[in-house]
Parts: sequence; structure tokens; C-alpha cells
Amino acid sequence: METRAAIAVAAGKPLEVTTVKLEGPRAFEVLVEVKATGICHTDEFTLSGADPEGLFPAILGHEGAGVVVEVGPGVTTLKPGDHVIPLYTPECRTCEYCLNPKTNLCQAIRSTQGQGLMPDGSSRFSTLDGDPILHYMGTSTFSNFTVVPEIALAKINPDAPFDKVCYIGCGVTTGIGAVINTAKVEPGSRAIVFGLGGIGLNVIQGLRLVGADQIVGVDLNPAKKDMAERFGMTDFVNPSEVEGDLVPYLVNLTKGGADYTFDATGNVNVMRTALEAAHKGWGESIIIGVAPAGAEISTRPFQLVTGRSWRGTAFGGARGRTDVPRIVDWYMDGKIEIDPMITHTMPLEEINTGFDLMHRGESIRSVVVY
Amino acid sequence: METRAAIAVAAGKPLEVTTVKLEGPRAFEVLVEVKATGICHTDEFTLSGADPEGLFPAILGHEGAGVVVEVGPGVTTLKPGDHVIPLYTPECRTCEYCLNPKTNLCQAIRSTQGQGLMPDGSSRFSTLDGDPILHYMGTSTFSNFTVVPEIALAKINPDAPFDKVCYIGCGVTTGIGAVINTAKVEPGSRAIVFGLGGIGLNVIQGLRLVGADQIVGVDLNPAKKDMAERFGMTDFVNPSEVEGDLVPYLVNLTKGGADYTFDATGNVNVMRTALEAAHKGWGESIIIGVAPAGAEISTRPFQLVTGRSWRGTAFGGARGRTDVPRIVDWYMDGKIEIDPMITHTMPLEEINTGFDLMHRGESIRSVVVY
Repeated sequence: METRAAIAVAAGKPLEVTTVKLEGPRAFEVLVEVKATGICHTDEFTLSGADPEGLFPAILGHEGAGVVVEVGPGVTTLKPGDHVIPLYTPECRTCEYCLNPKTNLCQAIRSTQGQGLMPDGSSRFSTLDGDPILHYMGTSTFSNFTVVPEIALAKINPDAPFDKVCYIGCGVTTGIGAVINTAKVEPGSRAIVFGLGGIGLNVIQGLRLVGADQIVGVDLNPAKKDMAERFGMTDFVNPSEVEGDLVPYLVNLTKGGADYTFDATGNVNVMRTALEAAHKGWGESIIIGVAPAGAEISTRPFQLVTGRSWRGTAFGGARGRTDVPRIVDWYMDGKIEIDPMITHTMPLEEINTGFDLMHRGESIRSVVVY
Repeated sequence: METRAAIAVAAGKPLEVTTVKLEGPRAFEVLVEVKATGICHTDEFTLSGADPEGLFPAILGHEGAGVVVEVGPGVTTLKPGDHVIPLYTPECRTCEYCLNPKTNLCQAIRSTQGQGLMPDGSSRFSTLDGDPILHYMGTSTFSNFTVVPEIALAKINPDAPFDKVCYIGCGVTTGIGAVINTAKVEPGSRAIVFGLGGIGLNVIQGLRLVGADQIVGVDLNPAKKDMAERFGMTDFVNPSEVEGDLVPYLVNLTKGGADYTFDATGNVNVMRTALEAAHKGWGESIIIGVAPAGAEISTRPFQLVTGRSWRGTAFGGARGRTDVPRIVDWYMDGKIEIDPMITHTMPLEEINTGFDLMHRGESIRSVVVY
């Protein structure tokens, strides 16, 4: 079949919106009509060329929601008409990782996914001339139709609006999951969130959801304050307005250091501040942000010996097929908010506008609606 | 009263064994006759002058065992004749730290202890001329008699031999506790221990105790192999005999990385190797060793985002009054071994020989028997 899609033709170039060919699903694969997709910083990271593992030409996009159109041989858990969210971290439920309750990093299809291919080692996308185009993160939601492995699709509540819950495919789950799956924050905790972009806001609403007592947000941009407060932030700190070192200021503000700190900036210096602002004896610092290639984190080992832990999270520690439908239900039940974070929507033809808005810091999340 | 003691008169000088004056116990303090004391690297760290917080003149020693001679006003949990192990990490059971199950770092007397003083801000030790001598780590077991706060004494099985269980006052508890309290290693785990000195050997027997499947020991000194095997090591790796990078070698040896790794070297480069040899998705690396002042650990944040945790431990995460008596019982029941690690004993008059043996790497543990 043919479908409209935005192709990343080369690093640093705008996406090209055009018509491409898409093969139908093979065994254990599913054809999905994407109804909406968010534009995430990770797409930008790859498109810019900064991602050393980025491959071109490819169809980016990993934050989608849509409807099953057709299932390939062997697919048993989905049928045409099911509403789904594609998962860049699949959940096969049989690999060594899925069987270990400590991790969500299913490895079933990792090597082919990393090469931009389906699990059988081939691509379903090609140009009208027949030249292959690569998949991206196993999802390629910047195409109106896409083929995704069955194990990388979460079946969701069919009443959920695509243009909102697509954000659960990455940002919402990453932020909320960092709180509930990775840190396992207890009610009454004090927490600090560094970076009040889309991920940071979701960390904040995750902290509110689990009953944190103090939720400190740190950002250099004072314009972030109002929105963060709406999602549950109790204290705002602008580092440019703090005299002296930020760490002792934050330790004092949180009565000895935070029980949990979260880096949602990707800046390795901020990651160090986040660790050192965690409480002696038991504070945990969770790295969410993706750092530039080659960047390193550092601290004195004394920080760890005196009881702080340094950890990280990918996709919020969520097992997608299990956890994503629950988060969709939480949205439908009003336990979490998404609507105010979707600041812009646009058709696929204007997808490059979404990247421009991100560059200018004008959007929290732009969503392409097909 | 008067007592024989070894005084650290200044950084870098041998201890001076002499007679000093000791005041009796004040409120909530206990006079202890020390029967035996180990000589630990931390005493050496302070004596050498490398410890930026080291104070002189002081009576060092923090790995002792002895008998209660007299109790001060208000002491309710100990009486003369009780056998005890002094605790450099006390357990008051009422401070914010003691009441948080995630930490063992009781803060009740921390500030005075760090200044070499009893909780009331004064010292019980002085020269025969009346010049004050400082306490050390709240224990000062390099004195035949010492005064210790009640909350810093663990009451132990009176049948336990002082010249063996004194080692539980630091090294044994630190190593075994890192496994059982900090890492909480599960049976069947794979683990790597870096550094096969006194701490590393106790990590190894802790791993054996909890039923680890694979216990890899890493040390540049092949002479460490036999003793480590005796305590449960299953695989020995000498980094000088490994071609290429050590991390992939260890990852391969442990079938994907170790579930738990422990640094018992204090070398920040080894700490990085230990983290990166931990299993993707769930591996935890525990720092036990004390690094030189100013040294920093580093890694790429990707190591944490893909599921590794970096943590530390002090006194093996043990709450001394609760946990130390249990470990003494384990020794008496034959669940753990100590005797082969006590390689040398000597009277107080020869304590400097113990430091010489440590410098030359000839001892695992030297014990002064009074």
C-alpha cells in the first residue's frame, strides 16, 4: 500500500513529507493506522545528527496512537479495530529481561530495532522508486500507516482521544514512570525535579499522584513556573536567582536534602547537582535526560558512601503492554492531566513547524494529527 | 584512672605507647576494658595524614572488643561484666536517621565524635601532665581502657573470643553487611568483588552466606587467590593477565554482567570498572572503599539510564547494636569464618609492627591483644 509519511532524509535537514510504499504485516507484525503522534526531543536528537546511532533515510516518530488495520500470521493478542499505542520499548514477556522484575528493557528485538529494521531484518517502508527507508525505534509514527511488532503494541481504552494519549507513548510514561516504577516514591516524600519541560512536568504530576509532600521544580526559565504549579509543584527555584552554591540552597529548602531527585535536563552538571541535593543516608537521584554523546557524570564517591544512590530510567521503567493501558485509564479517570501539555497540533504536512516550535521553546508538546 | 595506650602524636609518626589518664564515665557513658583490637586501614589513613579530618594527638583504634567495667548515670542497657563491641557508627534508635529504615547513619553524636570528643564536648583522655588527648571515631580502642557512649556499644555473646570478634567491629560487618544490608543480594546471584584484602574477603563470605551462584574475585596480586577461594570465591581474575578491556571480559565471564559488584579498593578507576561490569537492566554496584581526598568517580550517564545503579555503604549498612550481636552469633555458630583472617597478634607495645605488616601487605588483619 501507499501512505503519507515524513522522511528524515539526512542529519540536520528538515523532514520531507511525501508518499511512501508500505508492505503489509509479516508474521507477528501488525499494520496500524496512526491517528496522532507527538514530536519528542528524541526525534530531534536523531534528526539533528547528534545521536551517534542515528540512521538515514528513516521515518522517525515514537509517540503515537492509532488503530489496528490488519494483523500478520501468528498475532493472537490484537485484532483489527483495536486501539493501540506503539512501544519503542517492547514487552515480549519471555526474554531474560522481561522475566526479571527489576527491569523493563525487553531485549527480544533490540538488535534489529537498533538497525531500523523489523525483527526479521528487513524494512516495510520504501520510496515509490523502491529504495528502502528505515524504521525508527520500532515505531515510525511519522507515517500515517506503520507496521509494528505485536510485542510493541499496547492495547488501550477505545474511548481515549488519540491526540492526547499519544503522549503516553513516551513523555507521560517516562515522567510518571520514573516516579512510580523506578524511584517508587512513597507518600510524604520530598522531591526535586530539574528541568520543567515535558518530561519534568510529568515527573511533577507523578509525584503529586503518589502523595509527595514537597515538589521542588528547578528551571532557569521563570515562564515555566505557572504550568509546573498547575501540575503540582510546591516550590520553584531559579538557579540564576540563588546566591552561592545551588546544592546547599536545595538541601536547606528540603530540610536536609530531597528523598528523591530527578534530572530531566540531560545536562551532566545538573545531574551532579541532582545527586548531591539528595538526602544523606537515603536520597536517590534518577537520571532521565539523555546526555550529549561522550559526556560524563562525576562526583566524589563519598556522596554514595554516605547513602545516596545514583540511578537512571528508560521509558519510566514501564513495561509497555502492561503499564501503558493503565496510564491511559488514569488519564480517562482524571487522575492525571495531559491536555494542558499539548500546546500545539498540526497536520503531517506541517510537521517541521513542530520542530521549529520545540527549538524556540514555545511548545511543551506538539502533536501531529492525521 | 591510668591506662596504657598508643597515642597518635602527629601525622606520619609512629604511635607512642605510654600511660595516659582516663576519666571515669559521665552520664550515658560506659567504661570498657578493651581486650583486643584490630588494626584497620582507616586507622592508617588517619595516622598517615591523608585524612583531611584527622586530628592529633589522639588515641586511634575502632575495631575492638572488651568488657564493661563501670557505667555512668543514666545507662540502662549495660552493666559491669557485659561483653561489648564499640561502634564507630552508633545506634541511638531515636534520631531521624535511626527511625528511617533506609539508613544506618545515626547522627545522634556525629558532630562531637568528628571532633574527637565525647557527646558533652569534652575528652576523657589526657596525658599524665594533664594535656588533653582526643578520642577517635568515638571508640579509641588503642587504649586498654576507654570510655564510650552507651549508644555506641553492642552487647555480645560472652563466650565469643575477643581476639577474633573484635574484627566484627569494622571489617567483618562492613564486608558482610554490604552484601546483606546494602545490596540485599539474592540467592543465585552473580557477583564480582574488586580487591581481595580484609574487606573483600568478608564480602566474599557474605556472598557465600546468602547463596550467590558465582563469586568472582579481582586482584592484581595472585597470592590472594587461595585465601579468597577458602572464603567462597568461584572465579579469580588478575587484571594484569587479561588482554584488552577488563569490563567486557568480566561481562562475558558473568554471562552478561554481574547482578552485584563491590569495590573494596578505594580506587576511583576500579569503581568505574565495577559499575560498568554490572548487568544492564538491573546490576548494582556498591562502593565500600574510601577514596583519596578529592578523587572523583565518573561514567557515562547511559550506564545508569540502561539500568545500572551506583551506591555506597558505610559500616555495611549495619545498625550496630542490633546487627553486630547477630554477626557474633553467626561466627559462634560457624556460619561465617574469622580465624584465618587474623594473621597476626601482638601486645600493645608492638602495635607499630601491625602497621608495618599492613604497609608490606603481609597481614590480612593484625590484632592487638591486651
